[in-house]
Amino acid sequence: MEPLCWQSSGLELVDQRQLPHRVTRLRPATVAELVEAIAGLAVRGAPAIGLAGAYGVALAALEAGPPEMPGYAPRVRALAGRLARARPTAVNLGWAVGRVLAELAPLPGAAWPAAALAAARRLHEEDRSACRRIAAQGAELIRDGGRYLTHCNAGPLATSGVGTALGILIEAARQGKRIEVLACETRPLLQGARLTTFELLEAGIPCRLIADGAAAWAMARLGLDGVVIGADRIAMNGDTANKIGSYGLALAAHWHGVPVTVAAPCSTLDAGCPDGAGIPVEERSPDELTGHGGTRWAPHGVGGWNPAFDVVPAEWITNIVTDAGLCRAPFSGLREWAGQTTQDPGVPQG
Amino acid sequence: MEPLCWQSSGLELVDQRQLPHRVTRLRPATVAELVEAIAGLAVRGAPAIGLAGAYGVALAALEAGPPEMPGYAPRVRALAGRLARARPTAVNLGWAVGRVLAELAPLPGAAWPAAALAAARRLHEEDRSACRRIAAQGAELIRDGGRYLTHCNAGPLATSGVGTALGILIEAARQGKRIEVLACETRPLLQGARLTTFELLEAGIPCRLIADGAAAWAMARLGLDGVVIGADRIAMNGDTANKIGSYGLALAAHWHGVPVTVAAPCSTLDAGCPDGAGIPVEERSPDELTGHGGTRWAPHGVGGWNPAFDVVPAEWITNIVTDAGLCRAPFSGLREWAGQTTQDPGVPQG
Repeated sequence: MEPLCWQSSGLELVDQRQLPHRVTRLRPATVAELVEAIAGLAVRGAPAIGLAGAYGVALAALEAGPPEMPGYAPRVRALAGRLARARPTAVNLGWAVGRVLAELAPLPGAAWPAAALAAARRLHEEDRSACRRIAAQGAELIRDGGRYLTHCNAGPLATSGVGTALGILIEAARQGKRIEVLACETRPLLQGARLTTFELLEAGIPCRLIADGAAAWAMARLGLDGVVIGADRIAMNGDTANKIGSYGLALAAHWHGVPVTVAAPCSTLDAGCPDGAGIPVEERSPDELTGHGGTRWAPHGVGGWNPAFDVVPAEWITNIVTDAGLCRAPFSGLREWAGQTTQDPGVPQG
Repeated sequence: MEPLCWQSSGLELVDQRQLPHRVTRLRPATVAELVEAIAGLAVRGAPAIGLAGAYGVALAALEAGPPEMPGYAPRVRALAGRLARARPTAVNLGWAVGRVLAELAPLPGAAWPAAALAAARRLHEEDRSACRRIAAQGAELIRDGGRYLTHCNAGPLATSGVGTALGILIEAARQGKRIEVLACETRPLLQGARLTTFELLEAGIPCRLIADGAAAWAMARLGLDGVVIGADRIAMNGDTANKIGSYGLALAAHWHGVPVTVAAPCSTLDAGCPDGAGIPVEERSPDELTGHGGTRWAPHGVGGWNPAFDVVPAEWITNIVTDAGLCRAPFSGLREWAGQTTQDPGVPQG
């Protein structure tokens, strides 16, 4: 299932809040609707929201009015800015919006709607290709007969291809490695319970759902061969922002000698962040903690603290797998790869 | 709110699965119904299930038929054995059932129903008194202006008094210390989100609900003055079984230099367990992970791993507070206190 695509009728997103039980598609007609879909997590996963932002610039180029009207370019840029700010932590969003805008800059306004769409489609294809490269390189780290743990969802629904972290596991299984995957349910929004298990079942990979609080105990009691997670932003020293829970998970893995592999396309590397201290961490409404899917279980009147991400220090990370290659501590290769796009020779480039 | 009491009509339990939104009371009329209520978590919390077991022996003494019938005593003991085995991890259950049976042993059968009830009521009063002593001693560890984190529920609903871990925080606040409490929601059964927040709101203590996965990040980002948790079984070296998630929480606290305080009555100390390796850890149905309260979010067909508890190594524990006193590493005082009952001079003993 592709999280998003551009049809003749415009952008179409799978509303991931409804998965796995209902497959509902949204067709945001305006930038405001798309910003709402991104901020409300109808589409999520750093690579996927980057693509949503890229297609959003195509929406913006249509919405800003006839290109010959005065002020067209500033209107497009203002709308694109709203897209880029829809969520703060995943660097892919601002990066993808910026990439499309940069392609438009030298062109006359009349060319912008078609050029924005073409640029978004190119990024989309690049992301598919990046996922294939990540999966192929990362699968080499996976041991036949091993047990791996993943957190949140970094599978096909979070990207446009086979996924990043989950792509590695899916590719290893496709190569015939018999693995078991433990999926942390990933409160509050349960992307692990709803999406990762769904994708693992689809791929025919044995998996078990666990409570987030059971992850460290799984390392002690069951034993793990690795933790494999995605990323929302990777600083130049390797510090990695990812879904809340990743910090504690990586600490526990470090303590138990379990390797931690982070998988992400180069668009997730932020050359502007020397280390994790500069990564903005989104805090979301405490309402996400008081229940789920229309069921409320917390008493009324209770507050909450709901950071959507945390930042894993580089010293707890064993491998960073990108489409450009595999990097190990001290992660000095990251700067060269930041924001780079890799070409998959097997795929015609648009 | 008392989790259980014996009325003229028999045993009455608050069904904690329905809290905080509905206060429903169960009246188990047979040992089988009570075993179901304990195993199904209508009543939970190590001290409270101990008391449920104790009152259960009174139920057994009625259910086993007229005391003059042949085989009465073995029937009572068999029913009591079913109670003691209703859940494996909390040592209080077997301890309390055993305490009541030991009081019956020298008496004629005709005296058992009344004697069992009197013994259960005495344990009930002892538990209230133990909670008061734990709260008073533990409150000395709490800093005015401090921020504390607790996991699961070790408050009034888990005991018969002010609670153990939560009792300490409630007592500190009663003494005028201005504290904030972070409550881990405690998947899968959400005792933190449903019960601890409810009790903290009742007590007027500022609290914020957090996802279990956010606890380690809270230590890094917000800073914590302590983690305060209850216990289901404490081995003689200080290793402590508590709700799943406690292991990772204590590891993170150890890493961040945050003191971990475990609070429990002496009935939670197991003289038969030299260390945590001997503590049986209950594994519950994976169905608890696939949704909550009638809402299912995981795809059908997914399996799970659902240990209800984990075991925190003593080396990550700073303080163990019991009704008999405060113990610090290497916890050599525990053996003397195991299974002991303390007398609160302010309370008449029945």
